[in-house]
Amino acid sequence: MENQIDGRALILACSAIGAGLAMIAGIGPGIGQGYAAGKGAEAVGRQPEAQSDVVRTMLLGAAVAETTGIYGLIVAIILLFANPLISTYMNLIG
Amino acid sequence: MENQIDGRALILACSAIGAGLAMIAGIGPGIGQGYAAGKGAEAVGRQPEAQSDVVRTMLLGAAVAETTGIYGLIVAIILLFANPLISTYMNLIG
Amino acid sequence: MENQIDGRALILACSAIGAGLAMIAGIGPGIGQGYAAGKGAEAVGRQPEAQSDVVRTMLLGAAVAETTGIYGLIVAIILLFANPLISTYMNLIG
Repeated sequence: MENQIDGRALILACSAIGAGLAMIAGIGPGIGQGYAAGKGAEAVGRQPEAQSDVVRTMLLGAAVAETTGIYGLIVAIILLFANPLISTYMNLIG
Repeated sequence: MENQIDGRALILACSAIGAGLAMIAGIGPGIGQGYAAGKGAEAVGRQPEAQSDVVRTMLLGAAVAETTGIYGLIVAIILLFANPLISTYMNLIG
Repeated sequence: MENQIDGRALILACSAIGAGLAMIAGIGPGIGQGYAAGKGAEAVGRQPEAQSDVVRTMLLGAAVAETTGIYGLIVAIILLFANPLISTYMNLIG
């Protein structure tokens, strides 16, 4: 019986794909925060006396840019550790 | 009975893929908000006295840029936790 | 009866994938609005006295940039909640 592909296996298999796809969101924060880091370094090099203000602004902006990467991570973790789709299926097949 | 792939399993499995795909939208806000962070840091370095105005404008613009990432997250959460497609299917097969 | 994949299940399953793909459009507004936010912050830093004009222009432009993200969301919502493909299929098979 277990040596056949069943519905449960299909859902869990596609959840692995879905979790991987969700992580692609990380491209964005990686690029954006890297740009912010570069501009921050540039600004500090030009006005070293403003370093703390520049760094604070850079980190605040980078924290905002992180959010969509976190969303992707949360969706991946839900798919991996608390998969609601397989629960729905198990309820449906009784 | 459970050891076959049925329609419900297919819908739920593809919902996992759909949820993962929806999160890819997060690339955009990540890049955009990071750009805003970099330009904000640069502006603060140049005019530290305008820091509060700069940061306020940066955060306001970043909040607008976040919206499409939130749309993707909402669609993913709908697919995971309140899947209308499986409901439609269950109604169709009675 | 429920332990087979039928046409209705295939249509609804692919609709989940389609809804996820539609959300990828959100990449664009996220990048564009973030660019606007960055340029807005830069302009406010340079002429703080023009802040309200700068912010108004930034938000007007961002609203226009939002449209394609909204289009993607609308298509996803149609696929999820008012799927015309499954209706067409049900009419076709009578």
